[in-house]
Amino acid sequence: MAGSSYGNLFRITTWGESHGAAVGVVIDGCPAGLPLSEADVQHYLDRRKPGQSRFTTARQEADHAEILSGVFNEKTTGTPISILVRNQDQRSRDYGKIKDCYRPGHADYTFDAKYGFRDYRGGGRSSGRETIGRVAAGAVAAKLLNHLGITLTTYTRSIGNICVPETEYDFSCISENELYMPNNIYARKASAYLEECIKSRDSSGGIVECRITGVPAGIGEPVFDKLDAALSGGIMSIGAVKGVEIGDGFIAARNVGSENNDPFYSDNNRILKKTNHSGGTLGGISDGDTILLKAAVKPTPSISREQETVTSAGVPTTISITGRHDPVIVPRAVVVVEAMAALTIADFLMINMSARLDSLERFYL
Amino acid sequence: MAGSSYGNLFRITTWGESHGAAVGVVIDGCPAGLPLSEADVQHYLDRRKPGQSRFTTARQEADHAEILSGVFNEKTTGTPISILVRNQDQRSRDYGKIKDCYRPGHADYTFDAKYGFRDYRGGGRSSGRETIGRVAAGAVAAKLLNHLGITLTTYTRSIGNICVPETEYDFSCISENELYMPNNIYARKASAYLEECIKSRDSSGGIVECRITGVPAGIGEPVFDKLDAALSGGIMSIGAVKGVEIGDGFIAARNVGSENNDPFYSDNNRILKKTNHSGGTLGGISDGDTILLKAAVKPTPSISREQETVTSAGVPTTISITGRHDPVIVPRAVVVVEAMAALTIADFLMINMSARLDSLERFYL
Amino acid sequence: MAGSSYGNLFRITTWGESHGAAVGVVIDGCPAGLPLSEADVQHYLDRRKPGQSRFTTARQEADHAEILSGVFNEKTTGTPISILVRNQDQRSRDYGKIKDCYRPGHADYTFDAKYGFRDYRGGGRSSGRETIGRVAAGAVAAKLLNHLGITLTTYTRSIGNICVPETEYDFSCISENELYMPNNIYARKASAYLEECIKSRDSSGGIVECRITGVPAGIGEPVFDKLDAALSGGIMSIGAVKGVEIGDGFIAARNVGSENNDPFYSDNNRILKKTNHSGGTLGGISDGDTILLKAAVKPTPSISREQETVTSAGVPTTISITGRHDPVIVPRAVVVVEAMAALTIADFLMINMSARLDSLERFYL
Amino acid sequence: MAGSSYGNLFRITTWGESHGAAVGVVIDGCPAGLPLSEADVQHYLDRRKPGQSRFTTARQEADHAEILSGVFNEKTTGTPISILVRNQDQRSRDYGKIKDCYRPGHADYTFDAKYGFRDYRGGGRSSGRETIGRVAAGAVAAKLLNHLGITLTTYTRSIGNICVPETEYDFSCISENELYMPNNIYARKASAYLEECIKSRDSSGGIVECRITGVPAGIGEPVFDKLDAALSGGIMSIGAVKGVEIGDGFIAARNVGSENNDPFYSDNNRILKKTNHSGGTLGGISDGDTILLKAAVKPTPSISREQETVTSAGVPTTISITGRHDPVIVPRAVVVVEAMAALTIADFLMINMSARLDSLERFYL
Repeated sequence: MAGSSYGNLFRITTWGESHGAAVGVVIDGCPAGLPLSEADVQHYLDRRKPGQSRFTTARQEADHAEILSGVFNEKTTGTPISILVRNQDQRSRDYGKIKDCYRPGHADYTFDAKYGFRDYRGGGRSSGRETIGRVAAGAVAAKLLNHLGITLTTYTRSIGNICVPETEYDFSCISENELYMPNNIYARKASAYLEECIKSRDSSGGIVECRITGVPAGIGEPVFDKLDAALSGGIMSIGAVKGVEIGDGFIAARNVGSENNDPFYSDNNRILKKTNHSGGTLGGISDGDTILLKAAVKPTPSISREQETVTSAGVPTTISITGRHDPVIVPRAVVVVEAMAALTIADFLMINMSARLDSLERFYL
Repeated sequence: MAGSSYGNLFRITTWGESHGAAVGVVIDGCPAGLPLSEADVQHYLDRRKPGQSRFTTARQEADHAEILSGVFNEKTTGTPISILVRNQDQRSRDYGKIKDCYRPGHADYTFDAKYGFRDYRGGGRSSGRETIGRVAAGAVAAKLLNHLGITLTTYTRSIGNICVPETEYDFSCISENELYMPNNIYARKASAYLEECIKSRDSSGGIVECRITGVPAGIGEPVFDKLDAALSGGIMSIGAVKGVEIGDGFIAARNVGSENNDPFYSDNNRILKKTNHSGGTLGGISDGDTILLKAAVKPTPSISREQETVTSAGVPTTISITGRHDPVIVPRAVVVVEAMAALTIADFLMINMSARLDSLERFYL
Repeated sequence: MAGSSYGNLFRITTWGESHGAAVGVVIDGCPAGLPLSEADVQHYLDRRKPGQSRFTTARQEADHAEILSGVFNEKTTGTPISILVRNQDQRSRDYGKIKDCYRPGHADYTFDAKYGFRDYRGGGRSSGRETIGRVAAGAVAAKLLNHLGITLTTYTRSIGNICVPETEYDFSCISENELYMPNNIYARKASAYLEECIKSRDSSGGIVECRITGVPAGIGEPVFDKLDAALSGGIMSIGAVKGVEIGDGFIAARNVGSENNDPFYSDNNRILKKTNHSGGTLGGISDGDTILLKAAVKPTPSISREQETVTSAGVPTTISITGRHDPVIVPRAVVVVEAMAALTIADFLMINMSARLDSLERFYL
Repeated sequence: MAGSSYGNLFRITTWGESHGAAVGVVIDGCPAGLPLSEADVQHYLDRRKPGQSRFTTARQEADHAEILSGVFNEKTTGTPISILVRNQDQRSRDYGKIKDCYRPGHADYTFDAKYGFRDYRGGGRSSGRETIGRVAAGAVAAKLLNHLGITLTTYTRSIGNICVPETEYDFSCISENELYMPNNIYARKASAYLEECIKSRDSSGGIVECRITGVPAGIGEPVFDKLDAALSGGIMSIGAVKGVEIGDGFIAARNVGSENNDPFYSDNNRILKKTNHSGGTLGGISDGDTILLKAAVKPTPSISREQETVTSAGVPTTISITGRHDPVIVPRAVVVVEAMAALTIADFLMINMSARLDSLERFYL
């Protein structure tokens, strides 16, 4: 309830601050028997690693994942999987200005308001380093999903006003450009835009999109624990996310029913939809189609441009945030969005197993 | 976990189907001592009642709230408050077509896929009548919030492409037009548009907006239980909602940091923001400013226009949904969005009370 | 968290006070497809009904169960099952003394201390009528368990010092005597003892025992959610229970390991234990043997003998509790203990279904 | 739900196996501002450390606690506190017999039945080393309680048949004898008895008792989350515990109401009880008196005496468990019982803070 746990049957608890000794996650409820190695986790962590391009912070962080429990003879045992990542780059430095004043767009003021004081070193618990635990756990969830034929494809849809049209997607490009966009030409345009942002000592927002294929129909719970509600809550819990859409999202609000409804048809005894405005869920339960979601990521709040603010005592001052900061966090948010989606789907697949009496009968009789 | 409960310390459980005997809600964790009457609940229920305008279904439903427990001498006792609303309009009728085929845009197919069969009478649990429990509980949460100086203002921002600009808001209009829009001129335009929808046997989507003032800074939990994440999950759990925004939402994704960051200033020893792009939360914790959220509501899926679909056996067919259906559900969704917001804020106010040692000391020493 | 919900996947929420309009329960998560009727629930409720013998209160309560949702065409639908029991016997009367002073052994003082005031009519929420919701839900859980080959046998082991030795059990007697003892001779002795209690205006405690057969090995979660821990917490939550034992219980504390350990053997490819000191769990996980638990029930606190106490203002006074009260609640607690055990086992059977990767593979591939 | 988390607002998640890299715990929800150092945690861990007497295993384990997060400038920050204890004594050895056969009284068989395989090294997750996480977290909870004037006194009440009568308690003795008994003479008798057990290659059970003073009246939630129910569930989740009593426990089952009811009186405007048969709770809510609970601990299942069992293939065999094992685990269980009690009380103190409207008003207005 204090906010560091996520999920029900597949449940994670993350911990750690930006400049503490380490960050990590405990995964409780991962099914026994899943092959798992530190390399599986490392592969995901490397996707969020800083220092990979000129648009991400130059902090050199090895972010090496150590699995401390829950794996025996290279398989998960069903007991908690504890994953630890030591913070490498904790050099003591002068936090002077940050320590005493509130950075606009950051959680400095709200943490102070809540707890009475805060760990001011690099944002403490509100730092983006908090997402390492999510991503490490997401790697395990994604491995479980892959075993069950479920695939997640996540990418940068837009940066600023540079948005890849759906008709020009080429998913093979995602790993080819440092912005994780599904089109290299748009990626070059976005790079040029980001260079401008850097020059003007500013930063940019963008949109991350995630497509999940292979989820069988019937996943999600009616009413409050709808699959799309859970996905939205999970995605919105990522620090910089300010909006979430499922399927057509806000477009649906401008449309008429005859356009928005997806006609059913059947093929080879499977019931399918001719379109996918719904984004793969109906009534909060998966309909067997691709689950499609979008996350609006705000511009990095840390900018070197001078900004007005106040000290914790309320005295007006200005601040220019120097040091190593990403002019855009969207590319690094891609794997975080994917992790949250994977964790949510894994949890709901497990919850769904006891939805019917005949499932219990097959399992126990 | 089966999805009919919401909240933690202020926790509700709803139940009931469209054409069953009744629908209702149990509220567990409402603080003791809150003055509460059936009229308080009825007032909220009346805001979602059908049959109020020519744009809402003509079903005559009294929707009378009965409080069965948890209130003694006109005050809440701290024990569960059970509220029951009998279904009045359960006349047996021919569900023939609906019974055997899947309505596009509805949860018929996904409920079948999940449970193996479904209550096909009017959508069963996936019907909009499910929201009665939310609204009844939301009335109690809102009463609690009002006691603490917190006010919610919720309205229809847009219907189809008719969108009230922020500069033309007049909140006194909300109760004056049957669409709950904050501007009567736009409401007339929207009415004209809805008349067209009815003529073309179609329906319209729209956007609901909610503003919450008076929430002190410090509410919300870091990481997964951010206040905005919880609000988003709660709002997205409303049947027809396909997108959620906090503050600038998707606009933030197109902006630069110097525009999106809200400068701090201080006034009379209070720390305030010059703008509110953040929508009242920073790092998932309230910053003392107005909390602003938007929900995209899809067009009513029930339209009388002929649509392609399949039977539950997979045979192609067409369906025209006759009977009493709203050409737009946005106005009725207004109070549902407000209810979910009130429930979420009430819960997080309670959770926050134990965040600091000095609070425990003041309480217990 | 406010205490009126129990369970995880099979989760119930009870509500209602002794002298309010009704009491009830909402069951969320019951698997779809279970045949269920009001008669199934009524059968269980009748086992806890007052007025059945001269040792239970003469209050005439029909306690008629009404199922309001979650059942369609005589089968559960997977959505919440709401069960309501109207309070019949709410005649207004003079609560004078009870209203203003604290009955020893009752929760009057502690409710006042917690909430600042209380519903003094017959104990309000702390009344034994609260257990109606547990028993109604337990009936549903027990029906589910029976479908899976699991049987619960629950009975009065002892009343005062009259205790049926294990060697003299005859389970066919349980339904033959009004005390639900597994031996009619001991039941007669206990009846004689209770007559003495009535004469001396006093009451008696006793022990309820529950045996659960057919639970497969592997049910229960390691560490905090051990099956025996959950059973103990559930049983101890019944108002008058002051002690719980699994298997040998406190006897095990006096024994040596060579006596207490149960040797394994195998028969027909099944692994079995030669003895059952463990009471059917090892490391908190079921071992396939009979689960055996005992609950110590305190004597009814309502006695007509004069007792010392204070008013809510702290003024010394005395009280004699007149009216309709059971000289022993043990026989009526039998079905409540069984209900809590059934609810716990049902929940843990469901939780266990996702413990292994190969189960997920079989379910989804 | 997979069983490694405990508590609600003050919530812990433990992880780690006997012979893995480390064991640990994450505490989420500890109030901000509590002074906390590794020494506070170490002090508690040392009380459960093996190798302290001739009756505990000779394994040399430093069990050094490292706090990795959640503490800044020597105070808790309100964010998760991650505590790690490296396993020192993981020398690789021959697990041959244990690997392939089921030790009586251990969880070997049930883990295999649940998960399909197990970490057989020293019991894996079912080892007593799992309790390190509980004790480390319990140290933090106890520190919080002490700040609020609440004290826990826990000790060995009995070993085998050697039981200290309540009239001969001298709590100053608890730290003077290696069995943590509140009477040195009985401790000597118990030591002599344990010497006999060792000679006969056997082990002994015993009873742990815990007294909690200073808990204000009003703590605990009605119905399922009664304070005594939560304490019982928590205590019963400790591996070797087979029975729990609150107050008079099973004695109450033999008593009459006039003996068992505690008369109220008042002193200096405080409402008190003349006796404490209830053990400090009425209706599951604390009554302001000492909370008294007892836990029955079974004899150590690991004995060097030859025992009958089967291999995992079901072949009959015998086993003698050699190596370092405690002839009694009761003294080491003392601090584990205290930890579970402290965790439970801390959680419920926090939950209680929002029970009344006037508390919210004082907090927020």
